[in-house]
Amino acid sequence: MIRVTLWYENVQEEGIASAAMTESASEEERERILRDLKEGSERIRRQYPDGLMGTIAGALRKEKDLEVTCVTQQMPECGLTQELLENTDVLIWWAHVAHEEVPDEIAYRVVRRVQAGMGFIPLHSAHKSRPFMYLLGTTGTLSWREGDFCRVWTVSPSHPIAKGIPESIELSEEEMYGEPFDIPKPDDTVFISWYSGGEVFRSGCTWTRGYGKIFYFQPGHETSPSYHNPYILKIIANAIRWAAPEIVRERFDCPNVPMSPEEKRKNAGRI
Amino acid sequence: MIRVTLWYENVQEEGIASAAMTESASEEERERILRDLKEGSERIRRQYPDGLMGTIAGALRKEKDLEVTCVTQQMPECGLTQELLENTDVLIWWAHVAHEEVPDEIAYRVVRRVQAGMGFIPLHSAHKSRPFMYLLGTTGTLSWREGDFCRVWTVSPSHPIAKGIPESIELSEEEMYGEPFDIPKPDDTVFISWYSGGEVFRSGCTWTRGYGKIFYFQPGHETSPSYHNPYILKIIANAIRWAAPEIVRERFDCPNVPMSPEEKRKNAGRI
Amino acid sequence: MIRVTLWYENVQEEGIASAAMTESASEEERERILRDLKEGSERIRRQYPDGLMGTIAGALRKEKDLEVTCVTQQMPECGLTQELLENTDVLIWWAHVAHEEVPDEIAYRVVRRVQAGMGFIPLHSAHKSRPFMYLLGTTGTLSWREGDFCRVWTVSPSHPIAKGIPESIELSEEEMYGEPFDIPKPDDTVFISWYSGGEVFRSGCTWTRGYGKIFYFQPGHETSPSYHNPYILKIIANAIRWAAPEIVRERFDCPNVPMSPEEKRKNAGRI
Amino acid sequence: MIRVTLWYENVQEEGIASAAMTESASEEERERILRDLKEGSERIRRQYPDGLMGTIAGALRKEKDLEVTCVTQQMPECGLTQELLENTDVLIWWAHVAHEEVPDEIAYRVVRRVQAGMGFIPLHSAHKSRPFMYLLGTTGTLSWREGDFCRVWTVSPSHPIAKGIPESIELSEEEMYGEPFDIPKPDDTVFISWYSGGEVFRSGCTWTRGYGKIFYFQPGHETSPSYHNPYILKIIANAIRWAAPEIVRERFDCPNVPMSPEEKRKNAGRI
Repeated sequence: MIRVTLWYENVQEEGIASAAMTESASEEERERILRDLKEGSERIRRQYPDGLMGTIAGALRKEKDLEVTCVTQQMPECGLTQELLENTDVLIWWAHVAHEEVPDEIAYRVVRRVQAGMGFIPLHSAHKSRPFMYLLGTTGTLSWREGDFCRVWTVSPSHPIAKGIPESIELSEEEMYGEPFDIPKPDDTVFISWYSGGEVFRSGCTWTRGYGKIFYFQPGHETSPSYHNPYILKIIANAIRWAAPEIVRERFDCPNVPMSPEEKRKNAGRI
Repeated sequence: MIRVTLWYENVQEEGIASAAMTESASEEERERILRDLKEGSERIRRQYPDGLMGTIAGALRKEKDLEVTCVTQQMPECGLTQELLENTDVLIWWAHVAHEEVPDEIAYRVVRRVQAGMGFIPLHSAHKSRPFMYLLGTTGTLSWREGDFCRVWTVSPSHPIAKGIPESIELSEEEMYGEPFDIPKPDDTVFISWYSGGEVFRSGCTWTRGYGKIFYFQPGHETSPSYHNPYILKIIANAIRWAAPEIVRERFDCPNVPMSPEEKRKNAGRI
Repeated sequence: MIRVTLWYENVQEEGIASAAMTESASEEERERILRDLKEGSERIRRQYPDGLMGTIAGALRKEKDLEVTCVTQQMPECGLTQELLENTDVLIWWAHVAHEEVPDEIAYRVVRRVQAGMGFIPLHSAHKSRPFMYLLGTTGTLSWREGDFCRVWTVSPSHPIAKGIPESIELSEEEMYGEPFDIPKPDDTVFISWYSGGEVFRSGCTWTRGYGKIFYFQPGHETSPSYHNPYILKIIANAIRWAAPEIVRERFDCPNVPMSPEEKRKNAGRI
Repeated sequence: MIRVTLWYENVQEEGIASAAMTESASEEERERILRDLKEGSERIRRQYPDGLMGTIAGALRKEKDLEVTCVTQQMPECGLTQELLENTDVLIWWAHVAHEEVPDEIAYRVVRRVQAGMGFIPLHSAHKSRPFMYLLGTTGTLSWREGDFCRVWTVSPSHPIAKGIPESIELSEEEMYGEPFDIPKPDDTVFISWYSGGEVFRSGCTWTRGYGKIFYFQPGHETSPSYHNPYILKIIANAIRWAAPEIVRERFDCPNVPMSPEEKRKNAGRI
């Protein structure tokens, strides 16, 4: 069994106002903000009656080899206790508007677990999440626009993440993310997306950090139906299997080796 | 001065019939084939009154640091004598329909010079040329269609080949080349193209083989106006400067080193 | 079951004189050459009483998931019929002195199968074999010396090929292969070797070509005991599992796509 | 002129006791600590009478195209004001024992400038410095031992950083740094080191982050004579030229593009 933890920001779906949004707002503005939030929340729930996280989790739970735990940013320690992370093989991350509400302490806890071997699958707008930026060392910037038709092309058809995926997938509506995407050279570029408005994007990329594998995957705007598409869900399941660690790193220090290998060989009479 | 050799297949532009085209044809068929060739040739010449090679060479000759030699496949030894190659810093290659008329002996002569340090810039349909396939070790296959609008996106804006190039370039008409493109992982993916018909393509990619640098660049169909576009010409000039060798390899053998570095150090009294 | 084909040059072990060795030799020289060959052959057989190929095959046959076929260069078509290659998941290649006796036709047959998905594991002196050079596009040159102690360091401890392998492996005697090693940038550098004479070498490297995975592994000189070392054998078995294809490529053409994806979408009433 | 800033920790050379060293120490212990520090400091000054920073700066100042500014961690803002960074093309970083005295705020200021285009050359023990770890996303762990003979092999002889450098360089005494080195796959591995005690190390590696280039170089222990070796100094000078930015990034946001490129093309009457 691969132990999957699905981390969800859950701010828009719940219609939660951040402190920053309302602190200096007048009564009237405050009402408008809250109304907008409510409408936004309803749009997500119309698209995903089981919730965005519930939809992904529901699909993954049909896979016999996956064991799925759901946590949200509103939980204590953002839902990411050391214990949970130590019992997670692959962490999926969906976040959009509240990246800065994950404290650095938690973000680095995730970074450290990836370096130890935990797989990490940041989805869609997680390109600006702290763990993603801290692991890659880049800003993750890109351009964007809502409401394009999107065609995801399989660029590395023999990659395990592309297994069973056709030459291209059509998404009736997705948020456009456009190049240049500020990322380090991917180990593998598995998918590149075409948008009807005229942009391209490296939408499925892998990296390695320490013992951990990372797969970023672009589709998944909160009001787009992408997580109902069986191929998108299959790609996520493939990526989980690909990212699950075979070995977990134990040591994080820089050991001093006072007696050299050659001295040991000499002492053993082999020189 | 960077010594550039521009190699041109020159079969379509001259309207040359290959032996294979006509050997088993009836008189009537033969006439039709020759008429088609003539029409094809005229289409190229309407687009490029100075010839495709002449247009590229003319643009490059305006650059003060480049010295351009033009050769064609119809010349003895396909225009690629050992002497010329040894006096070439960067070889540009345009070919489309007669890849197999370059004998392996000549193709490997090019391969060897690249391994020694010569830069190599295969353009457009050179993805199926022998030197390209032999240097990369892959088949270079892709899908294609004539007549799309094309937008070339700069994916690595800080790469020297992208210097002075805007975020994207629009080409009113280009041949579509679509993914999956069968190439080894590029060292750098500098450009990715968007086509109006719905495809994407890694249209500007770099590799290193031995001491030599390679840049493949997709635009340049023989009846498309891409080589009139100043940005396309600037990219080619940038690529020439990037690919020009600083060091040329002398030795291609596997030297036996009977006395080890440690033995030498011992003999010199330093152990 | 993974279908492994073990290809062995078998020239030195059999003490076979090549035509080039003896054609212009006097009777006396001829006798000396044949005596040297016989002595060389005996040295290999003392080290590997079951033969070099027999030793590797014997170890691999203990693995329940591997099915091993042995062929040699002396067989018709160098033992590499199209049928056998189409029924091979991973091809292991050991050759040293007779690389040029594998005709290009056979070498390219191997190249094409790797591009289709077959795994390829060139061992030791196969760095100058034709399939290796043709797949990588480089010369594979290096420096060499017989008779060093060698320590193989695991540089990518979380790579599947390093599974169960300690931080370093000691080989009492190996042929030294020294940098610079003329190869394209590896996808992964899994092992780097230290030699007592003072050199280093990237001794375990991976690449991808088309759908096929390649792992070059340095240890395995014909008179060194490396193929008796359980870790060396484990690395080869790990590499076989890593290189076995999940998908085999069917098409090797460049399909024309006269109707674009967007036109199809329009015709389907989705635009 | 390339504007080089040389950043030096300067703790050991000055014999500075950190707060952590002495706070809970008895009077006697405190005296011993301070005596050890003084001895350590004297050892560095015997090796580098002009100081470690002074030695490197002195060598670089002989290069006509370099303009060198020296700063130390003891200066306000660790010597790294925003203004200085904005006027730095390449930042060299030497630190060993006080990595944690560089506040995250300063470390991220450096990270951001590298992402904008500034070159970054962490030397020797800077593998545990904050900017290095934050840019790479890995821990930089390795094994170590003082006092080995070291031979640095040039693995990528055609890389600009290896220009004019022989096949190998001998360092009479260096601190051993051993694999596995926890770093992401380098863009290029330029040097690999051999140590007399039996280890190997990827001692010269490059990466790109955003618009900035990074070169890590291992030699340079504070009591070893490596910075007197003309090849080591030449490599640093080469690396500075290689890492100097041609373009500096201006924007760090994710621009919304409400009107798509295709809409603009339509509005311009080109569709």
